[in-house]
Amino acid sequence: MKVGLLGAGRIGRIHGLNVVARPDAHLVAVADAMPDAAASLAAATGAKAVSADAILSDGSIDAVLICTPTDTHADLIEAAVSAGKAVFCEKPVDLDSARIRRCLVTVEKTGKPLMIGFNRRFDPNFAALESRLRAGEAGAIEIVSVISRDPSPPPVEYVKRSGGLFRDMMIHDFDMARFLLAEEPVEVFALGSALVDPAIGQAGDVDTAAVLMKTASGRIAQISNSRRATYGYDQRIEVHGSKGMLRAGNIHETTVESATGQGFRADPVQNFFLERYAAAYRAELDAFFTACKGGKAPTPSGLDGLKAQILADAATESSKTGKPVTVSLTEA
Amino acid sequence: MKVGLLGAGRIGRIHGLNVVARPDAHLVAVADAMPDAAASLAAATGAKAVSADAILSDGSIDAVLICTPTDTHADLIEAAVSAGKAVFCEKPVDLDSARIRRCLVTVEKTGKPLMIGFNRRFDPNFAALESRLRAGEAGAIEIVSVISRDPSPPPVEYVKRSGGLFRDMMIHDFDMARFLLAEEPVEVFALGSALVDPAIGQAGDVDTAAVLMKTASGRIAQISNSRRATYGYDQRIEVHGSKGMLRAGNIHETTVESATGQGFRADPVQNFFLERYAAAYRAELDAFFTACKGGKAPTPSGLDGLKAQILADAATESSKTGKPVTVSLTEA
Amino acid sequence: MKVGLLGAGRIGRIHGLNVVARPDAHLVAVADAMPDAAASLAAATGAKAVSADAILSDGSIDAVLICTPTDTHADLIEAAVSAGKAVFCEKPVDLDSARIRRCLVTVEKTGKPLMIGFNRRFDPNFAALESRLRAGEAGAIEIVSVISRDPSPPPVEYVKRSGGLFRDMMIHDFDMARFLLAEEPVEVFALGSALVDPAIGQAGDVDTAAVLMKTASGRIAQISNSRRATYGYDQRIEVHGSKGMLRAGNIHETTVESATGQGFRADPVQNFFLERYAAAYRAELDAFFTACKGGKAPTPSGLDGLKAQILADAATESSKTGKPVTVSLTEA
Amino acid sequence: MKVGLLGAGRIGRIHGLNVVARPDAHLVAVADAMPDAAASLAAATGAKAVSADAILSDGSIDAVLICTPTDTHADLIEAAVSAGKAVFCEKPVDLDSARIRRCLVTVEKTGKPLMIGFNRRFDPNFAALESRLRAGEAGAIEIVSVISRDPSPPPVEYVKRSGGLFRDMMIHDFDMARFLLAEEPVEVFALGSALVDPAIGQAGDVDTAAVLMKTASGRIAQISNSRRATYGYDQRIEVHGSKGMLRAGNIHETTVESATGQGFRADPVQNFFLERYAAAYRAELDAFFTACKGGKAPTPSGLDGLKAQILADAATESSKTGKPVTVSLTEA
Repeated sequence: MKVGLLGAGRIGRIHGLNVVARPDAHLVAVADAMPDAAASLAAATGAKAVSADAILSDGSIDAVLICTPTDTHADLIEAAVSAGKAVFCEKPVDLDSARIRRCLVTVEKTGKPLMIGFNRRFDPNFAALESRLRAGEAGAIEIVSVISRDPSPPPVEYVKRSGGLFRDMMIHDFDMARFLLAEEPVEVFALGSALVDPAIGQAGDVDTAAVLMKTASGRIAQISNSRRATYGYDQRIEVHGSKGMLRAGNIHETTVESATGQGFRADPVQNFFLERYAAAYRAELDAFFTACKGGKAPTPSGLDGLKAQILADAATESSKTGKPVTVSLTEA
Repeated sequence: MKVGLLGAGRIGRIHGLNVVARPDAHLVAVADAMPDAAASLAAATGAKAVSADAILSDGSIDAVLICTPTDTHADLIEAAVSAGKAVFCEKPVDLDSARIRRCLVTVEKTGKPLMIGFNRRFDPNFAALESRLRAGEAGAIEIVSVISRDPSPPPVEYVKRSGGLFRDMMIHDFDMARFLLAEEPVEVFALGSALVDPAIGQAGDVDTAAVLMKTASGRIAQISNSRRATYGYDQRIEVHGSKGMLRAGNIHETTVESATGQGFRADPVQNFFLERYAAAYRAELDAFFTACKGGKAPTPSGLDGLKAQILADAATESSKTGKPVTVSLTEA
Repeated sequence: MKVGLLGAGRIGRIHGLNVVARPDAHLVAVADAMPDAAASLAAATGAKAVSADAILSDGSIDAVLICTPTDTHADLIEAAVSAGKAVFCEKPVDLDSARIRRCLVTVEKTGKPLMIGFNRRFDPNFAALESRLRAGEAGAIEIVSVISRDPSPPPVEYVKRSGGLFRDMMIHDFDMARFLLAEEPVEVFALGSALVDPAIGQAGDVDTAAVLMKTASGRIAQISNSRRATYGYDQRIEVHGSKGMLRAGNIHETTVESATGQGFRADPVQNFFLERYAAAYRAELDAFFTACKGGKAPTPSGLDGLKAQILADAATESSKTGKPVTVSLTEA
Repeated sequence: MKVGLLGAGRIGRIHGLNVVARPDAHLVAVADAMPDAAASLAAATGAKAVSADAILSDGSIDAVLICTPTDTHADLIEAAVSAGKAVFCEKPVDLDSARIRRCLVTVEKTGKPLMIGFNRRFDPNFAALESRLRAGEAGAIEIVSVISRDPSPPPVEYVKRSGGLFRDMMIHDFDMARFLLAEEPVEVFALGSALVDPAIGQAGDVDTAAVLMKTASGRIAQISNSRRATYGYDQRIEVHGSKGMLRAGNIHETTVESATGQGFRADPVQNFFLERYAAAYRAELDAFFTACKGGKAPTPSGLDGLKAQILADAATESSKTGKPVTVSLTEA
């Protein structure tokens, strides 16, 4: 497959290099609003640096990877599927659920594959946990817990454009909760505070938050987020069920342990997502190309992207109103 | 100090034997509605089996330990302090907050010490964590997480009289959350389901539950409970703060680990509270007698008992109404 | 059973208090060359402080616990069994194997039970490992590894009288290796160095040592010792076999773990043997009294004491000559 | 740098693909006695499949990687350095120390760089441990322990040509012990048994072995090996010193942990060396190319290869004679 990459920033670079490493895909073109970024990645991968339009209008390109800023995602998805291309797009499709819905209608009409980059589903540890969960190892699912803490908060300027913590950061955890619960949440309650950086609070957002969700059959999900963790990028999941518990956790920088009069010391955990999820990014692209080649719809789908967004919207509202919010994802 | 024990059941027996092991306290009398229970413990400890009234009216007894059924606690506390005795009482004072308040007024009038048996504060691991938290090791407190899962659900008959999961089981976690937060919660939101035993649901209670609480300054507490955990009595706390994280966890039955083609296997965790909290029960009584001898008010106090009950009441209400409940513990 | 205690030092005190806690044994008399030590323990236990001779000649005493200095053990064992008493004696019977053999002949003639205090066999973790090993969980035994490190070296004056590291410290590990191997070693090779304290080297002893042993069928045991470990009392065993591995390790002071920019930190391990082996000392006495009451020979026996001593003698010789030493324990 | 690869088997393939991933090296030619192996790797890397002679006589090739069978190593090293090429050679240079010495004389005369593939030094965990050890974190080194267990024994036909366990398998651990001890061993004592596969014993080799070594200043190293571990490829190192302990261990297949009535279960450890040491192989080649480009002699050197071989020879002799063997590596 011939592949075009839209966006040559940090995450675009990861995907571009991962395409190069695949025997079944050929990265032919890279576009970025910053010409230097495109040129640099093109040089490293053997692709050409071109404009986004050139990629979209190049009939020989089978698939595009969209790694541009969020506010361009929906337009680019629509343009790409309309041009007959398979699309992999970084989360989220848009910060506005209505816009996502319109975009998905367009995608549906074209019948082209769209996959959303919820990379954590492809982490080998989390994927193994989910697979064992599905095989019944924990029995009936009762409580899903997701802990997600970034090493340090983003700049306030980023925060202001981000759609808020629930849409920007916790959206990954909403997707993970759905992935693990295997049943849609029907109710969302959220609490948030600005404890890490007062400027984040002044910008109207929170940096510390927790959510409770419940499904129709009574399964419970709890999520907590912080924009700062001194010991690294904290990424943990745990599922409690009728037969037992399954959990998967962090990866330390090395396995070295020291023991002295101060006790036993292990390394901080891997920091940050490029390192922690390196294998997940590879597996994610593998799933995309495998689905496209096999003529199957890739997962997570655009609808998965919409559902996570609806949960993030509900949490944002709950956090502001102080009241739980009812959602109806099965009709989304 | 001469000590009388009211209630010679499972927990009364623990406390009675712990009194015997102390050089500064002498267990002189044991009472129980079941004469055999009293006689058996009396024989094991060298105390006399007598009636509760005999203990309360014996002027030579300095302190009483109340380990009777919950519905007798408030009356016995009032009778004991009125008789001039220091009182240690198992949680809760009563299932009705109004009754607790009246009881505490009586206690206040007598000026006698009253300590409530929130044993987990005295677990050496949790106590060390709290002490290091207070010393600033995690910095400013941001998220307190408490996980508490019993090995197996109690009989439905017990559940019916228990006041419900939030008052019967999660009350320990409300106290732990207050102990760790170092600031009173102002809002409580609870979700509950009957997933473990349908009969518990038919009895109007839940067996799986989660709570979110927030303090005035924005600190967040999350608690989750299950009435069943196949791998033992699951008791974990974790505090995330500006400087890092402190957590304390379970104790496995032994340190033995096996490794085979199926992987590495460690023992289940200690099961159940008599084993897991054996050291906590000893340290708890030590705190009681040390406070009494030093003329200081013991902690956790009757007021701590009331505050945990108010949180449990709020969670019960939230779970039923589906709405968060505002509480005002500083005025309790 | 009525029990007399010879020796009211650190370890005698442990055993004395453990007797008091048993319903089936009554500590009636305590003797010590230091009258204050005897009086203090007598006061704490309700026993009488008397002379050793008084204990040995008191026909009502069924069992004696010998916790005196090593050079008195053999004489006291002989006197006690000759006086018709069951004997529990701290390791070793004597630093001289020939003296041990003579002592065991006397014991044999009287037919009285003699148990040697290799407490580590009774550690609940090590005992569980051995039991699972015997049940075949690791398959055929191939490599037994024992690591034993004291927190800090003893005074040189103690070292001079101790018989040397192999007889004083590693003797416990020789017994543990025999316990786990389930086949007698036939060859011993030892290396030792004075790396911790030069004065120990000047006194002709070593403070850091390692041993390799082999059994007739080819099983291998490796032991290493250090007289100093900054992180606590390091006590680990591991058995590798045809079906897998079983290991049991240290117990940290608490389960608290902190995470900061410096990484994840757990407590040092329990320090020292009185704390680490508290449960083992209780279980050891339980085995002694249970065997005596049941009319069975207690284990580890005097012969076990002799065999460990023979291995320690062989290691001492190997360390000095630089050559492996052949031993024949099956004929011991 | 232009690179030629001799040997396109399992390990040659790893190195070949790692060269391709480097921006500073270009894999131009691959040779293998099995034409299909060479052709397959050539196709995957864009290199040409040619004869070994063609690589050695191609003046444009700067460096060769030798991944052929052991009995060809010394000849190929000599031919390659004589042809002016930098050489990376898989361990060992030869099974005969005298042949290694002659080869190193030839290398020395040409002045060309030679690096030996002791890959474990480059494992990120072991490298970090060594670096922290060198920085003094454990203080003065006292006891070095290396445990190395393969998942399953090789075919007996392989064993017969292998030079024996000490030269074929434990040679890695001899190198690791030297790497960590930072002082040459002067004495070697070895025990070996055939416990895993009787056919290995009939072939005159052992499959289970342990070694003790001592340095001039009294540092102790203990190594143990098994040709079989049911739970994966067991690779552990531990260094005990005056200030504490440093250890580094295995990597489990995933971080998933389950908890049920049978206890807590983690995955087996990574199996086998291609997976466990994937990062080490990359870092190893990086060290080789970095040294070559910087005009520095790469490490581990041919002399390191010789010294590990001398220790393996000594262990083989000790295992056969039952006596310790003195070695003099500083004069090697």
